[in-house]
Amino acid sequence: MSETTLTPRTQVRRLPKRGVYDRDAINAILDEGFLCHLGFSVDGQPYVIPTGYARSGEQVYIHGSAASRMLRELISTVPMCFTVTLLDGLVLARAAFHHSMNYRSVVVLGQARQVHDADEKTEALRCFTNHVLSGRWDDVRLPNAQELKATHVIALPLNEASAKVRSGPPIDDEPDYELDIWAGVVPLRQVAGDPIPDVRNHTAGPVPKYLIPGVSVTG
Amino acid sequence: MSETTLTPRTQVRRLPKRGVYDRDAINAILDEGFLCHLGFSVDGQPYVIPTGYARSGEQVYIHGSAASRMLRELISTVPMCFTVTLLDGLVLARAAFHHSMNYRSVVVLGQARQVHDADEKTEALRCFTNHVLSGRWDDVRLPNAQELKATHVIALPLNEASAKVRSGPPIDDEPDYELDIWAGVVPLRQVAGDPIPDVRNHTAGPVPKYLIPGVSVTG
Repeated sequence: MSETTLTPRTQVRRLPKRGVYDRDAINAILDEGFLCHLGFSVDGQPYVIPTGYARSGEQVYIHGSAASRMLRELISTVPMCFTVTLLDGLVLARAAFHHSMNYRSVVVLGQARQVHDADEKTEALRCFTNHVLSGRWDDVRLPNAQELKATHVIALPLNEASAKVRSGPPIDDEPDYELDIWAGVVPLRQVAGDPIPDVRNHTAGPVPKYLIPGVSVTG
Repeated sequence: MSETTLTPRTQVRRLPKRGVYDRDAINAILDEGFLCHLGFSVDGQPYVIPTGYARSGEQVYIHGSAASRMLRELISTVPMCFTVTLLDGLVLARAAFHHSMNYRSVVVLGQARQVHDADEKTEALRCFTNHVLSGRWDDVRLPNAQELKATHVIALPLNEASAKVRSGPPIDDEPDYELDIWAGVVPLRQVAGDPIPDVRNHTAGPVPKYLIPGVSVTG
């Protein structure tokens, strides 16, 4: 299946031309981001909390401490919302009204499933670690039984997902193009600086290849 | 007042040492970000939607089309959550379990007030425009009556707000410091590329000072 299920809840209503439902486009956004924002309600009050995540096939994994209130809430049967946003640029129009931003976002609705199986939990942790920097899992001290127990992992299927994308130049009202006002786009991107080694590193430790400058930093 | 109201809902429970309630620290995070994630519930389903915002004193403004479902929901009396997150780095520990991210986030809970007054609405639009790039408002074609009418603006007070900050190196379990594994931080930051002028710009138009390379791009 190459498209997600388009439901009344995930259909992009405002500016529908910005809606994207193609699975590959959605996956590409999810694989580039580092942080998601999770939405859930407690006693009628919505909360939006940033956290890490990783995609594995047609689901995303989220993890956290077994002591986390957020994870406890998400593990119960409450519906949740999972959103990832990549900011690509500031869109400067001639009119204040038409200022905008270029961005790519994915919104997923659904209910999370708690991962209990030790093998799947370990696989989820592998995904998290490699989502941060590809190949990192091969270098680290792997989770022990106690750490696995202290970690809650939930999985959210990507069935009910949609993406929204804005790109390109500003769109002004036709008469405003005559105005002598600079308009255009200021592109924004996330870049990695030089890695800062921990002061307690052993000097013998090689610098992993994923830390070599110039290697692109995406999830 | 220099501190926000600490309520049971905004007190940071997990890892309380990461909690920050100082007003200046909260404002600095809000002023640096471009995007917020808004959380609200419709028929028990939480939604998390990215959008622009601007702080003005002890409130944040959000705006959108009068046709926006999100704005309509937020204008009703539903409680909402407003979250801004700045990602500062990837934290690579020796143990997979202790991998983390450096970040600064602000969570605000409350109910939004719709801005009806034309003067306050214009002031909010000025804040949005200058939040994108400081000084931009002075250069643009200002909103007309029709545009003001087509724009909904809401204000959310910063009373019930808290920030959460993680910074610094990884923290591993003591025995793991003996391991020959590279650990440290990969700093991340958002940078602006060269401005891309709209193809329909007039050549006579000067490049605004806020687009000169090297000028820091924060909200």
